[in-house]
Amino acid sequence: MKAPIRSNPMLEKLAPRPGRFALLPELTARQELALFCRALHREGYDDHIAGHITVAEPDGTFLINPWELAWDEVTAADIIRVDGDGIVIEGQWNVTPAVGLHLAVHKKRHDLKVVLHNHSRWGLVWSASGRVPPVYDQTSGQVEGDPVFYDEYAGSVDGASEAEAAAEALGQEKWALLKNHGVFVVGKDIRQAHLRAITLEHRCRLAWHVETLGEGQPITDPETLRVAQMSDDLGFPFLWEAMARKEIRLDPRVLQGDPTSAIKGKAK
Amino acid sequence: MKAPIRSNPMLEKLAPRPGRFALLPELTARQELALFCRALHREGYDDHIAGHITVAEPDGTFLINPWELAWDEVTAADIIRVDGDGIVIEGQWNVTPAVGLHLAVHKKRHDLKVVLHNHSRWGLVWSASGRVPPVYDQTSGQVEGDPVFYDEYAGSVDGASEAEAAAEALGQEKWALLKNHGVFVVGKDIRQAHLRAITLEHRCRLAWHVETLGEGQPITDPETLRVAQMSDDLGFPFLWEAMARKEIRLDPRVLQGDPTSAIKGKAK
Amino acid sequence: MKAPIRSNPMLEKLAPRPGRFALLPELTARQELALFCRALHREGYDDHIAGHITVAEPDGTFLINPWELAWDEVTAADIIRVDGDGIVIEGQWNVTPAVGLHLAVHKKRHDLKVVLHNHSRWGLVWSASGRVPPVYDQTSGQVEGDPVFYDEYAGSVDGASEAEAAAEALGQEKWALLKNHGVFVVGKDIRQAHLRAITLEHRCRLAWHVETLGEGQPITDPETLRVAQMSDDLGFPFLWEAMARKEIRLDPRVLQGDPTSAIKGKAK
Amino acid sequence: MKAPIRSNPMLEKLAPRPGRFALLPELTARQELALFCRALHREGYDDHIAGHITVAEPDGTFLINPWELAWDEVTAADIIRVDGDGIVIEGQWNVTPAVGLHLAVHKKRHDLKVVLHNHSRWGLVWSASGRVPPVYDQTSGQVEGDPVFYDEYAGSVDGASEAEAAAEALGQEKWALLKNHGVFVVGKDIRQAHLRAITLEHRCRLAWHVETLGEGQPITDPETLRVAQMSDDLGFPFLWEAMARKEIRLDPRVLQGDPTSAIKGKAK
Repeated sequence: MKAPIRSNPMLEKLAPRPGRFALLPELTARQELALFCRALHREGYDDHIAGHITVAEPDGTFLINPWELAWDEVTAADIIRVDGDGIVIEGQWNVTPAVGLHLAVHKKRHDLKVVLHNHSRWGLVWSASGRVPPVYDQTSGQVEGDPVFYDEYAGSVDGASEAEAAAEALGQEKWALLKNHGVFVVGKDIRQAHLRAITLEHRCRLAWHVETLGEGQPITDPETLRVAQMSDDLGFPFLWEAMARKEIRLDPRVLQGDPTSAIKGKAK
Repeated sequence: MKAPIRSNPMLEKLAPRPGRFALLPELTARQELALFCRALHREGYDDHIAGHITVAEPDGTFLINPWELAWDEVTAADIIRVDGDGIVIEGQWNVTPAVGLHLAVHKKRHDLKVVLHNHSRWGLVWSASGRVPPVYDQTSGQVEGDPVFYDEYAGSVDGASEAEAAAEALGQEKWALLKNHGVFVVGKDIRQAHLRAITLEHRCRLAWHVETLGEGQPITDPETLRVAQMSDDLGFPFLWEAMARKEIRLDPRVLQGDPTSAIKGKAK
Repeated sequence: MKAPIRSNPMLEKLAPRPGRFALLPELTARQELALFCRALHREGYDDHIAGHITVAEPDGTFLINPWELAWDEVTAADIIRVDGDGIVIEGQWNVTPAVGLHLAVHKKRHDLKVVLHNHSRWGLVWSASGRVPPVYDQTSGQVEGDPVFYDEYAGSVDGASEAEAAAEALGQEKWALLKNHGVFVVGKDIRQAHLRAITLEHRCRLAWHVETLGEGQPITDPETLRVAQMSDDLGFPFLWEAMARKEIRLDPRVLQGDPTSAIKGKAK
Repeated sequence: MKAPIRSNPMLEKLAPRPGRFALLPELTARQELALFCRALHREGYDDHIAGHITVAEPDGTFLINPWELAWDEVTAADIIRVDGDGIVIEGQWNVTPAVGLHLAVHKKRHDLKVVLHNHSRWGLVWSASGRVPPVYDQTSGQVEGDPVFYDEYAGSVDGASEAEAAAEALGQEKWALLKNHGVFVVGKDIRQAHLRAITLEHRCRLAWHVETLGEGQPITDPETLRVAQMSDDLGFPFLWEAMARKEIRLDPRVLQGDPTSAIKGKAK
């Protein structure tokens, strides 16, 4: 592979060949975030303009998608930067008032680079049902453990104390169902957050279909998922790259407009 | 933002930045209505050529989509104008006989500019179930209160007395489920009617998924929705603009043909 | 309207205006049939290459879509003509062995011009459930009466005696659910057959959603549907034209290749 | 027909006409496999980059889609070749570690040319439900017999002994549901494997819809399916060709890049 993928010792042995083309072009952080928004929109994270993703940068600032745009239209040029107080310091758009929730989590979890919240289609169904969906297949089991079910949210995501309470409830976990309010997913990088977000939606969708049929047999033996769960830590080989590539193929404008990009598309 | 958005005192403080591009081009009333038809068609208001939207103009006339066309093909040039008796006074198409229902509501509700009726996918399911769907998430709760469930409709929408009865049943409310016949939504402008229409469809869809799973926990504490419900009155920031922008992006012809438009597209 | 629509005395009074453009171009019989295949495929009549539509011509022959092609790819040039014994007499493709079922119906029903069979998505569900779906909304009730539920089909549609038995079972009715085998719809012309086919699929889809929710309130008072049911006989104004127009807009090749057409597209 | 179709004695009698155009262009083995991946992705075999298809070549090697790419993007140029031990001997991409499962089946089943595994949408639902879906319509019954329900899979597809156990469980059968892990389909060629794969997904989807409605009447008389089941052995006439043609129509790049192809498209 010409494009860098996350270091995975198994992959060097299992996939030594370079590939017919680079899995992805070299991407700036803004391009990667714009692709992430679009890829998740396609998976069901599509409640109009709801939802935000923050990416922690090494200098203590954060990239975030703007308040004004839907996830399926955002381009690299639209990504804004906020400081640790959520004040916009780069970019022309505005930041959601809900940024406080993201910042509260980043403050407690320096192991994380990515924090995302949205009202995904199937995640919402279980968030309104008061239950965590069982793991009904191997794909659902790629991320170990159940989401936190956080049921004390009281209607707003802009109040500081509520944001802190939510961050507290997440604790050291990977993901959460917010009662009557969607999902919350974090990760050490976009590849990991992507796998967790699509796994959660898959798990919620499959479990609904299985349980409405009425005879589900969830996976209960943890050994069954041992190999699958290596994906969460090491990365599912090639998966994020394929999904990002699809977005570029379907609308190359997603990469446009980042002045630091090798692909210097004109802003739309 | 360069494009005018509805005055919202909170927004001036929360979103002071002008944006990388105008949220929407300046739109004529006809263009706005054509965009509204298309955006709702994409959300599930798609029963072939059923459904109409009237927009009250300051001079006592009404703009309306023509009888002959589906919501996903209408352009600004297709919008017609009727007088207070429902007689076409501008445009080349014909008006639905169902216009009487709209006019009866406009007559009683001078606080409203927009009246819409259609057979939306999920709205129909609940309209046939004899129940109002509970509010299972924050998005469903953006519009305060339950729809009127109007169950005395007797099969036709063109009789004057039936239209008056329906207008009577709506009273001072925002929306209604028409038993075995779809939905009815009104608003003080297109932004408000848009939020109500998509919220109703979302609420109906989510509630079906939650209740078929069998363990729904609806939101019952009104305080939970306090912030979300500010959207109905003040407008959900940037939402309508994003959905209208999507329609322009996917088919710019939607704006064509309005002689009063700044964007003077040729008629198809 | 510049394009001819079926004579409907009410329409002359209700829709006197000519329209901004013709509702449809003048269509040959082959173009109309190709459009019908495509429009129904989009509505759920999409079981791969299954399904055929015959159109009786004044000279005792029949137009039919070819055996080899899917409904979503057929063009005017692909339509073939068979004689009263089902022998191909015009066109380059082959005819389905299932044509016998169609011919058996045409033989008994000289009031009909159109006979169609397919395995539509929602029609199949009810055909496998042993029940006719109740009428849960006005749109479902546009066609008066329940489909015949024909449960003696024994696996093949090419045997003459089975075809006659099926034709016998249909009798003077408009439509049928074939047990474990899809649907059967007839009409005096394509406009009527189109309305019946989309109404059946709508009725089946809505009824499934209502009954899985569990509290359906079907329409039982026939008076409720009196106006809606005028559509079956007189035609639902402008509906077929809008759906055919959509197919032309999305893929104008559908009209190509008919040597008798005013629009002389080149064969693909 | 100008393109070769599988020899079917009935077809020579029933479909003697050559057709208006070739059903498919002449295809190389790589092009056929790329088309197969894309056609199944469209039918619900779409769990991101999961799933592989092996095609046995006369020289004892196997063609397979690469590990790195999703089924909806693969082109002829991307197909790789492995030897009997699963070592890549042609092509630039890498092979999935799951190839062992495929090779174990090919080793036991010299009657087969094609082995495929994926996590199809509706297949997964039943695989998690512990039951084989009944046959609720004729289309579902085109392939005789129930899938093997293999429930001893223990979490990995890369261990040799597990691969052999799975091959053992499949035995001489056509298809299997892998508990909590998707489906497994084999065939003597791509046409047969295609029919089996789409039939399994159709059967799973329909059965779910019928059983959630609650009153299913499965087909139990084998005589009912006698004619339909001829398709599995003789091939469903024209079906594979139509589905492959659709992929070419929607994205002709699928054929590109195979140096042995008559259609010498440039690699993307």
